[in-house]
Amino acid sequence: MRTLRAAARHDVAIIPFGGGSNIAGCLERMDTRRMTVSLDMRRMRHVLAVDAESCTARVEAGVFGPDLEEQLSGHGMTLGHFPDSFLHSTLGGWIATRSAGMQSDKYGKIEDMVLALRMVTPEDVLATRMVPKSSNGIDVNHLCIGSEGTLGVITEATMRVHPRPESRVVPAHLFPEFESGLEAMRECVRRECTPSMVRLNDPDKTALSLAFKPPSSRISRAVNEIFKRYLRVKGFDLPRACLMLTAFEGRKEDVSSRLRQVSAIYRRFGGVSLGPSAGRSFESTKYDFPHIRDFLLERDVTTDVSETSTVWSNILPLYRATMRAMRAAVAESGVPPWSGCHISHTYHSGASLYFTFGFIQQQGHEMEQYLAVKRAAQQSFIDHGATLSHHHAVGTEHLPWLAADISPLGVRAVAAIKQGLDSGNIMNPGRLCPSPDAFREWLRIGGEPRANMKAKAAPFR
Amino acid sequence: MRTLRAAARHDVAIIPFGGGSNIAGCLERMDTRRMTVSLDMRRMRHVLAVDAESCTARVEAGVFGPDLEEQLSGHGMTLGHFPDSFLHSTLGGWIATRSAGMQSDKYGKIEDMVLALRMVTPEDVLATRMVPKSSNGIDVNHLCIGSEGTLGVITEATMRVHPRPESRVVPAHLFPEFESGLEAMRECVRRECTPSMVRLNDPDKTALSLAFKPPSSRISRAVNEIFKRYLRVKGFDLPRACLMLTAFEGRKEDVSSRLRQVSAIYRRFGGVSLGPSAGRSFESTKYDFPHIRDFLLERDVTTDVSETSTVWSNILPLYRATMRAMRAAVAESGVPPWSGCHISHTYHSGASLYFTFGFIQQQGHEMEQYLAVKRAAQQSFIDHGATLSHHHAVGTEHLPWLAADISPLGVRAVAAIKQGLDSGNIMNPGRLCPSPDAFREWLRIGGEPRANMKAKAAPFR
Repeated sequence: MRTLRAAARHDVAIIPFGGGSNIAGCLERMDTRRMTVSLDMRRMRHVLAVDAESCTARVEAGVFGPDLEEQLSGHGMTLGHFPDSFLHSTLGGWIATRSAGMQSDKYGKIEDMVLALRMVTPEDVLATRMVPKSSNGIDVNHLCIGSEGTLGVITEATMRVHPRPESRVVPAHLFPEFESGLEAMRECVRRECTPSMVRLNDPDKTALSLAFKPPSSRISRAVNEIFKRYLRVKGFDLPRACLMLTAFEGRKEDVSSRLRQVSAIYRRFGGVSLGPSAGRSFESTKYDFPHIRDFLLERDVTTDVSETSTVWSNILPLYRATMRAMRAAVAESGVPPWSGCHISHTYHSGASLYFTFGFIQQQGHEMEQYLAVKRAAQQSFIDHGATLSHHHAVGTEHLPWLAADISPLGVRAVAAIKQGLDSGNIMNPGRLCPSPDAFREWLRIGGEPRANMKAKAAPFR
Repeated sequence: MRTLRAAARHDVAIIPFGGGSNIAGCLERMDTRRMTVSLDMRRMRHVLAVDAESCTARVEAGVFGPDLEEQLSGHGMTLGHFPDSFLHSTLGGWIATRSAGMQSDKYGKIEDMVLALRMVTPEDVLATRMVPKSSNGIDVNHLCIGSEGTLGVITEATMRVHPRPESRVVPAHLFPEFESGLEAMRECVRRECTPSMVRLNDPDKTALSLAFKPPSSRISRAVNEIFKRYLRVKGFDLPRACLMLTAFEGRKEDVSSRLRQVSAIYRRFGGVSLGPSAGRSFESTKYDFPHIRDFLLERDVTTDVSETSTVWSNILPLYRATMRAMRAAVAESGVPPWSGCHISHTYHSGASLYFTFGFIQQQGHEMEQYLAVKRAAQQSFIDHGATLSHHHAVGTEHLPWLAADISPLGVRAVAAIKQGLDSGNIMNPGRLCPSPDAFREWLRIGGEPRANMKAKAAPFR
């Protein structure tokens, strides 16, 4: 707090920094007139207390994913939060951005895991109590969660944790088409037997995933050929087929009984088991995908993602409209578009859609191309009733759509909290409070060479 | 909105009013210098849209529990929210107070059910989108949930709903003591097989519950005697025994498989099945308890409740300390104390404790007696790491403990939102923002004859 007070006295802006893996632009300096300090949180990395009876852990916010899991495993526990950025991101960052891990279907999103937290602001400390649920007015935990560094520094949190799972299996299935895979996912939710992770690739992403398979022997290629013939006999039209990856973890008996239930549902909707190899390949590469972008960027191919969530009845309309909009935006620049999508993170009322796009760069127009397709995706989300992001935060990338998402008065409410807790506006200034000119600003920041460099330099973007 | 604007123009305070059943004092006028209007919401009672595929329903906020369930049942759906006040309370009131229904173990607390909402403030409308989860900065739904009418009027909400259950059973069990019943509850949570409702009475409340049984025939009395002998043989010390009521609902096969799992756990912790009659008696009287208070008040007996939540490891220490504190506070006034407690609303990390107390009034000192025991309970919650209320809201009754619960800076954050959305302070003024003098104020309001009259007149208090 002394640091923040000093910063306030000298009008220095502070941006709390964990792993620096955020890809929505939460961490770059926006206010260039003032001195800005990135406050490195990584030395606050300790698990302070574990209550095995209540399954809670009090943890400092600067801890990285692997370090946290290692410390918790000493108590036989896991947090169960495994975002794509797991290796490079911190607890504080997850909370400040409303992150989701791959297994949120079982463990919840990060906001579901927070029992209590401590946030240091320039003037005082906000601290809540370790209680499972309360009716103490407006839930102030939720003022800190998702605040993206704009109110203060989240220094520690008490999280719900779980006994480490005895068993884990990752079966893969192929569905005859996207629609039947989606129906199967929804049926698992209705029957209250969701896996801990479920991820349905659309046909384009299925083709991409299968292309990432490790090189295979001649025998396994022969087996593959036989399997493909079997699928055709079963009525599969292979270019329309969709890969479904599912994970189950927990006690051995619970895993096997749930696996049985889910497999029966999958069969009912035409799903065919692919055996263990696709799941194994996913397990060994699951944290690699973000690095592929950087690899491709250096080879004149831009790839990036936009993701959202919506209710079940809106998933297919939103999917189709967004794919159309993204492809049209790329095609306009004269290069062939590629895009794909997976559905994951299921909830009672809906799920998340995660779009990936890619195109060959046209020299000198790289950012224009990028901004056109990113804009098309985000605008499609908003036009079709979805949200600006399911788990990547607002940052600078999504700021122009914030008022459309949470209504102008929602933005004013957020600004009011900011004004109340950080009247000097030193905490991550410029974020969560879009100016009326937000969209022009977005184009300007996106168009700067700095932003382009940043895109290439960061471990993730 | 026109109403609120007119009110703001004429400096008239507005208190949104649904069923008037709140027992924490959320609805009485606190600012006596200004004209105050209770805004009756009860004509906004329609289910506007049901999406059966996504299991969502958009509903006007003024609808009463039974009316809502009847409209939803036309679509084959239920909200699954059944608080004690179900017959006399509204959706808007549930959301504004962070209410919990009896079956929150299955369906969640009200804040878990809200997908989107609409709140009209004196200046504009805050509206959020119907999405299952988001990462769009600070979650503005959570600014409205629990706002107790201080920011605006919640006019509608989109809620997650569920197919109506095919089957429902309410078994009752007797445990040899409180501790083993508690262990059994926690084990169900750990095994991820919680019932839709679970309620463990302590020995004092068990005795009270059994006294409420309907009059029995001579034969059933004989059977009872035999059963008591059986319990003694099984090692039960009857005055220490605890009643556990459990409910399961859902698909027939799911209900029976879960019932099997839970019964096995109960047996492991010494639970003995009591057959269907105790559950039947609970089902037929579950909404009656609040009326008993009014009945007793008119007969010179004060009874009331205080409830909270805490983590599993703290339940017994908190239980013992609070019982001691409440009994000492009553005993000080020279009459014999009665108090009891039940544990319900289980979560991964803890549960709710619901204390009931009663005493014979000493003429002229009724409110003093009441305030002493209420204060003892609330202070014990705060001293022992719990929260001021699990589902009854802050109101006036719990206001002096708000800063201790959410920290002084938490209170300032709430005040900042209020300042931002209701700068004229016309929405339910005086609530959620305790003055430094909050406790003296509490004693003053509590001591006024008005408050005493109110206690006797309201259908619930």
